[in-house]
Amino acid sequence: MDKKLFTPGPLNTSSTVKEVMQRDLGSRDTEFIGIIKKVRERILSLGNVTKEDGYESIIIQGSGTYGVESVFSSVIGDDDIVLNIINGAYGRRISKICDVHNINHIDLTFEENEYPDIELIKQTINENEGITHLSIVHCETTTGIINPIESISDICKENNLIFILDSMSIFGAIDINLKDIKIDYLISSSNKCVEGVPGFSFVIANKNDLMKTKGIARTLALDLHAQWEGLEKEGQFRFTPPIQVIVAFKKALEELAKEGGPAARAIRYKENAQIILSNMKELGFESYLSEEKESYIINTFVYPQHPNFNFTEFYNKLNEKGFVIYPGKLTQKDCFRIGNIGKLYRKDMFQLIEAIKDVMNEMNIIL
Amino acid sequence: MDKKLFTPGPLNTSSTVKEVMQRDLGSRDTEFIGIIKKVRERILSLGNVTKEDGYESIIIQGSGTYGVESVFSSVIGDDDIVLNIINGAYGRRISKICDVHNINHIDLTFEENEYPDIELIKQTINENEGITHLSIVHCETTTGIINPIESISDICKENNLIFILDSMSIFGAIDINLKDIKIDYLISSSNKCVEGVPGFSFVIANKNDLMKTKGIARTLALDLHAQWEGLEKEGQFRFTPPIQVIVAFKKALEELAKEGGPAARAIRYKENAQIILSNMKELGFESYLSEEKESYIINTFVYPQHPNFNFTEFYNKLNEKGFVIYPGKLTQKDCFRIGNIGKLYRKDMFQLIEAIKDVMNEMNIIL
Repeated sequence: MDKKLFTPGPLNTSSTVKEVMQRDLGSRDTEFIGIIKKVRERILSLGNVTKEDGYESIIIQGSGTYGVESVFSSVIGDDDIVLNIINGAYGRRISKICDVHNINHIDLTFEENEYPDIELIKQTINENEGITHLSIVHCETTTGIINPIESISDICKENNLIFILDSMSIFGAIDINLKDIKIDYLISSSNKCVEGVPGFSFVIANKNDLMKTKGIARTLALDLHAQWEGLEKEGQFRFTPPIQVIVAFKKALEELAKEGGPAARAIRYKENAQIILSNMKELGFESYLSEEKESYIINTFVYPQHPNFNFTEFYNKLNEKGFVIYPGKLTQKDCFRIGNIGKLYRKDMFQLIEAIKDVMNEMNIIL
Repeated sequence: MDKKLFTPGPLNTSSTVKEVMQRDLGSRDTEFIGIIKKVRERILSLGNVTKEDGYESIIIQGSGTYGVESVFSSVIGDDDIVLNIINGAYGRRISKICDVHNINHIDLTFEENEYPDIELIKQTINENEGITHLSIVHCETTTGIINPIESISDICKENNLIFILDSMSIFGAIDINLKDIKIDYLISSSNKCVEGVPGFSFVIANKNDLMKTKGIARTLALDLHAQWEGLEKEGQFRFTPPIQVIVAFKKALEELAKEGGPAARAIRYKENAQIILSNMKELGFESYLSEEKESYIINTFVYPQHPNFNFTEFYNKLNEKGFVIYPGKLTQKDCFRIGNIGKLYRKDMFQLIEAIKDVMNEMNIIL
């Protein structure tokens, strides 16, 4: 029996998703070409759009970071300037990607437990001439905070900016309609809320803008436009894709639809989060985010101020009992995290709480 | 029952390799860290070396091309010049990677059915000042030709050049000792002769040179030195790796060792190739390479000059019978290819030959 993963992806997938990986398929064979087509269509449907609405989905092999690097290095030209709104580690990574590729960028950094200041964003756009793109992380896995993308999208519309959204850790578990909220590039990955196994990221692109980016790419493998072109022309990948991972993702997409789609999945995750938050509070743990900023993807808890608390011991004891939690990634405060996503239900959350109680007893910690 | 893949990877893997993918593992969990360590050790052992000999293995998520792009964009500095020896599509792809990253390169291109001219290589090095690196594809999947890497390695030694070998399609099925033949960067992938599933490439690097490359990388995700550093420091990947694909690869490596290692696997593949070559000849097909250049990884056959021959029909009919062959990739001649790698044995090769006979009968082709 594998351990239960309370981590923000890779996560627990269903046994049926894993089972479909028991195959070998030719990457250029008709059957696999059909699978690619279906997966690309369903990715769009998670954003409530179709090709006819002017959106394209593109699969990029590699982790989520590959997808983010693909977009930034492929759609922002040498004369463009991107404004990066940052309130966590993944926002900082975007800034690093811009540095590596010599992409003009202005970083606007906020506290990790605060929403970005909308007025300050507007002011920055007004005070800096030539900003063409704006980026933000949808749900910062660093803390779990869900950024206010509607207001940010409105700013992009008003200022005619291309909006790049790193929606890695929440897309698939949030009801989002790209016809209502303008997002030009949305990036997510196979091993997050769709509950597939890790191996690729994907992009939903506004076709209008994508068509203008041919030739911008600064790499071969992560060339977004070329990848799209390859998938469109022959229905195949330019380079050998992770066949089994894609086959599993197709199954995961079907199971997501069966569960009721992103809105229904969000309800399950919210219930998971509620169980964790209320019970951890009862046990005396302090949440890093204030209550109204708390998300349902992952929750961050401050190391308790108890002489017996030692995170490595706490982690290892839980691990031995079959529960994998997640270390922190904050710059300023020692924290650990508990994820609510993946094939986890009420009973799993209660089991984790029981295990945490046991470990606290073993470690002689009363908060 | 899945079709049999006579393709140069993705290929048929064993059911036991696929079975181990039925798991979810945390990417930062102890067990997975142990798996990464073992895989990295065994990759080195395929080249008959260990870390103590001064070699490092680095896993790069993505297809083989990602691995090639990682090496070229991470180890060749702005003032360096690489000499690319080209006799097929994968050599041309290397040249393209150099173009995308503005890497100084000189391309020396030969016919696709010819070995590179050793004297001309020497002459080119003498006539062009400042060449620092040399690259070649080990086995060009375009035709199957196995390039004379010993002589090329000798040239590199004599001229103090860093030798980059794209050994994608043959490494794991060739007895190679990196203590005898100097190769500074050897690149291969999970879904070739080790018989794993697709999802990552790997690099064996001469540590001495690798240590000099810090900061050269032109990307974040494909930064070879940073990837090595991450794997060494924490035993983990910088970015979420394809967990199940790596677990499967560990199993594939164990099965390769059990078969007797690369030398034994080469014997099986050679027998496969012999069956295909002799029987196809008997059926009247003409091989594209001359006999002495024929390889045991993949063989290339010229479209027969028969009025009834139509490749798409030929391919589809074989496909319907459960046999997947591979189209050609030559620039100048219409060809198709038959791969000999993967979990394929004598009986599979004979079954394919019988199927080809049946299809020729159905299409009324007598050669």
